[in-house]
Amino acid sequence: MSEKRLGARSMVFAHAPSVAGTGTVAGKKEGEGPLGGTVDYLNEDTTFGETTWEKSESRMQTEALSRAAVKAGLGVEALELIFAGDLLNQCIGTTFGLRDCERPFFGLYGACSTMAEGLTLCAMAIDGGFAGRAAALVSSHFCSAERQYRMPLEYGGQRTPTAQWTVTGAAAMILSETGPGPYLTHAAVGRIVDAGIKDPANMGAAMAPAAHDTLSGFFADTGMGPADFDLIVTGDLGTLGADLLRDLFARDGVDLGPRYTDCGLLIYDREKQDVHAGGSGCACGALVLCGHILDGLRHGAWNRVLFCGTGALLSPVSSAQGESIPSICHLAAFSR
Amino acid sequence: MSEKRLGARSMVFAHAPSVAGTGTVAGKKEGEGPLGGTVDYLNEDTTFGETTWEKSESRMQTEALSRAAVKAGLGVEALELIFAGDLLNQCIGTTFGLRDCERPFFGLYGACSTMAEGLTLCAMAIDGGFAGRAAALVSSHFCSAERQYRMPLEYGGQRTPTAQWTVTGAAAMILSETGPGPYLTHAAVGRIVDAGIKDPANMGAAMAPAAHDTLSGFFADTGMGPADFDLIVTGDLGTLGADLLRDLFARDGVDLGPRYTDCGLLIYDREKQDVHAGGSGCACGALVLCGHILDGLRHGAWNRVLFCGTGALLSPVSSAQGESIPSICHLAAFSR
Repeated sequence: MSEKRLGARSMVFAHAPSVAGTGTVAGKKEGEGPLGGTVDYLNEDTTFGETTWEKSESRMQTEALSRAAVKAGLGVEALELIFAGDLLNQCIGTTFGLRDCERPFFGLYGACSTMAEGLTLCAMAIDGGFAGRAAALVSSHFCSAERQYRMPLEYGGQRTPTAQWTVTGAAAMILSETGPGPYLTHAAVGRIVDAGIKDPANMGAAMAPAAHDTLSGFFADTGMGPADFDLIVTGDLGTLGADLLRDLFARDGVDLGPRYTDCGLLIYDREKQDVHAGGSGCACGALVLCGHILDGLRHGAWNRVLFCGTGALLSPVSSAQGESIPSICHLAAFSR
Repeated sequence: MSEKRLGARSMVFAHAPSVAGTGTVAGKKEGEGPLGGTVDYLNEDTTFGETTWEKSESRMQTEALSRAAVKAGLGVEALELIFAGDLLNQCIGTTFGLRDCERPFFGLYGACSTMAEGLTLCAMAIDGGFAGRAAALVSSHFCSAERQYRMPLEYGGQRTPTAQWTVTGAAAMILSETGPGPYLTHAAVGRIVDAGIKDPANMGAAMAPAAHDTLSGFFADTGMGPADFDLIVTGDLGTLGADLLRDLFARDGVDLGPRYTDCGLLIYDREKQDVHAGGSGCACGALVLCGHILDGLRHGAWNRVLFCGTGALLSPVSSAQGESIPSICHLAAFSR
């Protein structure tokens, strides 16, 4: 086996791809949150000028990708591969968003882990010699997600305290075989973990065991530990899931410490914004990564960051059939 | 750029992965078709012992993967990466089917192109040095697809002549860095093509332009042409889409000739089985590839085969919103 593979699920990139550019778009609520200033384009009415929420989501993908290309000093036509996905049935946020770009495209479904999944595949493609530049792109929209997964907005349903708020936004990251960094140095591919949680309004609890599985596997595969990183973030465990992840590591005798947080806790002000357990959705982790975290890496706030995309692989049908929630976590490690 | 990349969208694998094993399962109707004898496991009532069609589909995935592993002389635990997907909302055929296998997993959504997409990613992972053995796995089920995309079976809706019949089945292929072949030698990554077709009961017409785009791009990238292959198959264009693809090439002055056919025309006997324009679904092309085509490659019926997975990237919501059908085609080339 190659020296690029470490242990059961981890990879080290011999020629670590460099972040060439990121593009981020989001809605009004995200703009009012603590990280609103890191978003490239905020749309006040969250329609993005479209007539349905699904078309708004597609528009966000188009906008995020084109902004990432501009910031990378490229045209979208310079992208050799695009890896993208979203939460909508048949991933129509993505397929309509990329309909006109004429680039080679791999469609992904990893629920809210899709950004980390796509970045891992971009890095494999570049380090493997199959592309010089590749992009990972995801989106989620509160209104399309509510309609599909829960209730039409007009119903005005109550939310339980464990529920999270689906982030309205899209984020793209372009990786390149050469560049000044930050670099994507390692990845770990998730396994499906199902701890038996059946409440779709408590996805943090369902996903925390998957995050624990991937992170602890990555540490075992690489011989590294939490202290080797300045920042460890999960994508969208929310307050309950993040506490559970700390507890799961504490049972192993590992203290994640203050270096650990969750993007669902960073993107909104839970004191002032009515988001219950925090943010969620493909765009939650992706927006925080492509804005706040990359800014911090570039400016020296952190030198090494673990980004752990967490995804709940359920559907309304599986929940209606009494099933529990299979979950997954993909990990991408960045260095300055 | 690396010598592994050819032109705008094609790849040549320096160390072409070898097919280590395939596993196929299908339902009664597929068993009664001309290729029924090539399927490893046929289930007479298509429930596969489960209480819902969605759980039946997951069961098919589990069965196909474990049979492929047995035929490869491996346990499922020897698979370093699994790339898999299906047509169900949030890909629950896959996520529940793989829930217990504890293997690193990348979820895909490529509609009926998913097998070719997964095989391309397997080959990139192996040739890139990230895995020694990887599997691609897909499923579709007539009953879960009808319920989700069209009408509940109990409604007994009429079907138009252009409609295709969703294949009930699952297929897995394991690729390995070494082995006696057949080998996956080249791939071409699809772009989204939308020719403006809006009728979801005529997906062959929607997908044929995507197949033409990828095949003609592959020929341009590699300098090869139809005559360099003994067999060129599309995944599920059906009779109308296959005729359209021939026409599109004829306009280019290229005669695909008798070497071209479509898996949707091979899997059922259109004279005796009531399938209208032919078979469709993720399992359509995947079952034909993993059974009939690989058998022919192994026994010398063909030396070089182009497998072109075709996918319609619509959803019931996008059609209800008046949208046309974006489509894609991913290509994988096999040699004895």
